[in-house]
Amino acid sequence: MAGPERLSESQVSDSLKALPAWELKGGEITKLYKFKDFVESMAFVNRVAALAEEADHHPDILIRWNKVTLTLSTHSAGGLTQKDFNLARSIDGRRDARPG
Amino acid sequence: MAGPERLSESQVSDSLKALPAWELKGGEITKLYKFKDFVESMAFVNRVAALAEEADHHPDILIRWNKVTLTLSTHSAGGLTQKDFNLARSIDGRRDARPG
Repeated sequence: MAGPERLSESQVSDSLKALPAWELKGGEITKLYKFKDFVESMAFVNRVAALAEEADHHPDILIRWNKVTLTLSTHSAGGLTQKDFNLARSIDGRRDARPG
Repeated sequence: MAGPERLSESQVSDSLKALPAWELKGGEITKLYKFKDFVESMAFVNRVAALAEEADHHPDILIRWNKVTLTLSTHSAGGLTQKDFNLARSIDGRRDARPG
């Protein structure tokens, strides 16, 4: 089964424009989220986990009390693919859709 | 309100002897846990989160699919305190108590 194709630099750059606050770092994309406290961080992480399982694509997740850092890349492709940007959009879409 | 006291090097070294697989790194203690998959990692992280809230002391938690790294120190004391070792023991105690 062929995996997703690695994106070119210009494709990555274009995809990032639509994702505010996501940054390119060492061939991965990463975003820092800040919350009120640890409980809110964990609620967010559990929502991300459900989306990741649904997509069968899993970010690295670092939780530091009220801060959560997500890092995405596609190991099987050795870089960034559409799967990474799809999941990033899905995470931020659902998050932004919450009232308040 | 006085926070917990920072432990001496020999106290840290003694406390670590009772905690297999926890390592001292840059003034913090850290342990890597491996699971079957992401779902098992998340189940563990949610158990850790409940213990952390109970103790009002929160490890940094890094989730990388089937691997979870916990890192503990007491920021208010600028180093390691009894709170770190109490939480580490509590996490491993409950974990080891699971059947299978």
